[in-house]
Amino acid sequence: MEKLFVVKIGGALIDDEELLNKFLEQFSEINEKKILVHGGGKLATTLADKLGIEQKLINGRRITDKDTLDIVSMVYAGSINKNIVAKLQAKNCNAIGFSGADGNMIQAKKRVHPEIDFGFVGDIDKQSINEKLLSQLIDLDLVPVFSAITHDKKGNLLNTNADTIASVIAQSLSDVYDVELLFCFDKEGVLENIEDPGSVIKKVSEEEFSLLKEAGKLHKGILPKLENALGAVKNNVSKVFLIKETQLKNHIENHHGGTEICL
Amino acid sequence: MEKLFVVKIGGALIDDEELLNKFLEQFSEINEKKILVHGGGKLATTLADKLGIEQKLINGRRITDKDTLDIVSMVYAGSINKNIVAKLQAKNCNAIGFSGADGNMIQAKKRVHPEIDFGFVGDIDKQSINEKLLSQLIDLDLVPVFSAITHDKKGNLLNTNADTIASVIAQSLSDVYDVELLFCFDKEGVLENIEDPGSVIKKVSEEEFSLLKEAGKLHKGILPKLENALGAVKNNVSKVFLIKETQLKNHIENHHGGTEICL
Repeated sequence: MEKLFVVKIGGALIDDEELLNKFLEQFSEINEKKILVHGGGKLATTLADKLGIEQKLINGRRITDKDTLDIVSMVYAGSINKNIVAKLQAKNCNAIGFSGADGNMIQAKKRVHPEIDFGFVGDIDKQSINEKLLSQLIDLDLVPVFSAITHDKKGNLLNTNADTIASVIAQSLSDVYDVELLFCFDKEGVLENIEDPGSVIKKVSEEEFSLLKEAGKLHKGILPKLENALGAVKNNVSKVFLIKETQLKNHIENHHGGTEICL
Repeated sequence: MEKLFVVKIGGALIDDEELLNKFLEQFSEINEKKILVHGGGKLATTLADKLGIEQKLINGRRITDKDTLDIVSMVYAGSINKNIVAKLQAKNCNAIGFSGADGNMIQAKKRVHPEIDFGFVGDIDKQSINEKLLSQLIDLDLVPVFSAITHDKKGNLLNTNADTIASVIAQSLSDVYDVELLFCFDKEGVLENIEDPGSVIKKVSEEEFSLLKEAGKLHKGILPKLENALGAVKNNVSKVFLIKETQLKNHIENHHGGTEICL
């Protein structure tokens, strides 16, 4: 099967224009087929603050009410997505930006919870992905760039975790491609000691993940990434890594750096 | 050649949710191949006001500075485009939303003017359209939905007139389709007397356009529409009409209503 990279980037990178440009330069140089999935960054929060829209929390969990949905739709699917696409196009990478509503690419289910109304939050799994269309577009030598906005096919946009989107896209396309999923973030990988950048754990299996979790060694941000990474490994994604954003090129060319997630 | 409709809608319709829903219902019922192009509406101005971003004018002409570009990118390519796509998907119309940056679909030139710096405004012509990709996507039974955001392939998004986008897309696709271009707005057509909705002029030729213009009978909003409509007719678009938004279905099924623009 042909190789395909699914690359996820997050907020801190998106907020740093210089770092983002360097990353997109490396991403555009990947010769194999590829997909980019991006998260949000601070822009949505900044905009909500300016507009006096308060972030709602219930039991410490973030709620996406209608006002917040409007903001994230604009910022993620409009501003961030289109700016990334324009920058990639300038680097001769044939990027094409999508929300999950476009071409019914990612059809989510509005989250139903017995106690908490999370608002416009969409849950997805492998079956949510329009694999056929996505493959057709990749075959046209397009490079899909996904924002973390999905829809319910009932006319509503929904807010979905970007790590989860990257994971389920990788799972879905593993039927037709040899997929490598890369979660790019600001650390060298999963660290044994969060204070020590040199303490990268080279491989994390499901069992080791449980041990690390129990030992309280996984900080908040990395937990959902690892859960999504493990979900991918369990669903036939060939290779899954957590790597530092600046190491994308080095990782792809020299198979160097980061933490591999395995069964 | 196969029939294809290019349908343009504007701000007033987009701002009226009930009217927009009714329009999208009619649009989704068109059996032939189709493309939707949408303008902006008041949302961008409202948002700019709330954020204290002033609209800049030089010699009465609107300027798209960086702040304004950020707003229109978010609102047009994010909020409005994705909401229209989600609504069409709910009506089983396989909509897919684009800015001109996506897949390098519309490559514009930043406007250069000897006296006025218009800012991030993009000018386009028939050659700006990526006809090949657009045709490939239409052949996949997708329904492209364009916002009025383009790019310069140098990394910059640009603001482009939506009527012009509709016109040049229609011109470009006339090489491969039998294109009918429909400018939908809130009047029954071009009116002999703006106060009298019954005074629709059935056909306007280039010569009649000049006469109407000289007689001061064309109000501000309709002038660029007619110029873009004439540009389409001159460049091989089969049929070009200005019709009332609520009459889309009636126009298509019964060839009834509106003003036809011809040579």
